[in-house]
Amino acid sequence: MVAEHIVTAYDEELQRVASTVSHMGGMAEAQLADAIRALKDRDVDLAQEVIQKDDEIDRLEEDINEMCIRVLALRQPMALDLREIVAALKISSDVERIADYATNAAKRAIILSRTPPVKPLKTIPRMAMIAQEMIKDVLDAFLERDSDKAVAVWLRDSDVDDMYTSLFRELLTYMMEDPRNISPCTHLLFVAKNIERIGDHATNIAETIHFLVKGTRLRDALPPDVDRPHHMGEGGNFDDWL
Amino acid sequence: MVAEHIVTAYDEELQRVASTVSHMGGMAEAQLADAIRALKDRDVDLAQEVIQKDDEIDRLEEDINEMCIRVLALRQPMALDLREIVAALKISSDVERIADYATNAAKRAIILSRTPPVKPLKTIPRMAMIAQEMIKDVLDAFLERDSDKAVAVWLRDSDVDDMYTSLFRELLTYMMEDPRNISPCTHLLFVAKNIERIGDHATNIAETIHFLVKGTRLRDALPPDVDRPHHMGEGGNFDDWL
Repeated sequence: MVAEHIVTAYDEELQRVASTVSHMGGMAEAQLADAIRALKDRDVDLAQEVIQKDDEIDRLEEDINEMCIRVLALRQPMALDLREIVAALKISSDVERIADYATNAAKRAIILSRTPPVKPLKTIPRMAMIAQEMIKDVLDAFLERDSDKAVAVWLRDSDVDDMYTSLFRELLTYMMEDPRNISPCTHLLFVAKNIERIGDHATNIAETIHFLVKGTRLRDALPPDVDRPHHMGEGGNFDDWL
Repeated sequence: MVAEHIVTAYDEELQRVASTVSHMGGMAEAQLADAIRALKDRDVDLAQEVIQKDDEIDRLEEDINEMCIRVLALRQPMALDLREIVAALKISSDVERIADYATNAAKRAIILSRTPPVKPLKTIPRMAMIAQEMIKDVLDAFLERDSDKAVAVWLRDSDVDDMYTSLFRELLTYMMEDPRNISPCTHLLFVAKNIERIGDHATNIAETIHFLVKGTRLRDALPPDVDRPHHMGEGGNFDDWL
């Protein structure tokens, strides 16, 4: 009876780690949505809310780190359980970065609320929507331990990269047309970059889920002709966004 | 005799994890130095070398992850040893990002080698030098398990942030003066941002070292009047770089 009780408490601990990661991921997803809404609607109050909520997400990451260390120390998990813990540590770190990028977008939303509107503001919410769907789907993949769903997210990152590249060119054109556009467009360029980086972190999470479920590296498992997403966005095609 | 042999092998494994982290850190430091030299000297070959070497650093991170998981699974480390492993996982992830940012700077160096030189190119190497020293010092702090040295690195991040803020303004001015400056200055802006983010990752590593040595969070240990570095650089003072 005692042994059974211990096993149950242990399972509960692992469950609590996973559900905290999911909760944290949901918060980061909402932070991105709110930051982009603040940008679109010039809503400074909403942007401030996003900025303030970032600390909460940082603390959740620290909580997850501590829970993981406690489980490692007290329970000495093996095999799959160990992968669960390592995956939780990695995913929470990616989610924390996603929230950081959303916070940075919120800060720029405040600055942009004081400048005249510029046209590329229309493209950014579309790009953010894809990134947001990637976060949502990759969190579902984590909850369902579904590596196929994770791979689908991973493959979608090239859409975000393509949108970033075309937005980069568009913003440069606006800057060249009128020097008054330079300051707002520079901030939008960074917002676009933030979203592009969020897509990268969603692909990182997808790779971690694949490792969690399959125990192998996603990059090794794919056929060689699949276009691998690049960190830092501009990857191989930097020639054509000069 | 057998027990002693096992303990020694275990210590060797922990040692190997730590020395791989140090080696990886040294490589990332060199990558940053080479990327900035490629930028300054318009040396496309050197920039290509940096880009190619990034895969090696990515693989080192994966090796460290695997070593850590193996030690966790087979040795079930406790207390300080467990912190060693968690620290190695976290530091290697920060080092991997530092190398990523250096690689991105190298890609932009190639693009910038084809555009006319712009003046702010002088400030960037100075900023990179500080970031490079931060990496070097934080790696020394890791080798020496010296939390005071780690705190000193952590505090220096505000210098990099200040240089970034002034460079941001300078680059905007150049863009407004002449539309032909917009494209090169935009790339330099991202290089500056990359260096600023490298400083952030050095402070992350400093926090991890403090946790490793002291077992407590650096942010909780500092007096409240100390200016805490912000992720994403522009932190609290985003009002004045509009």
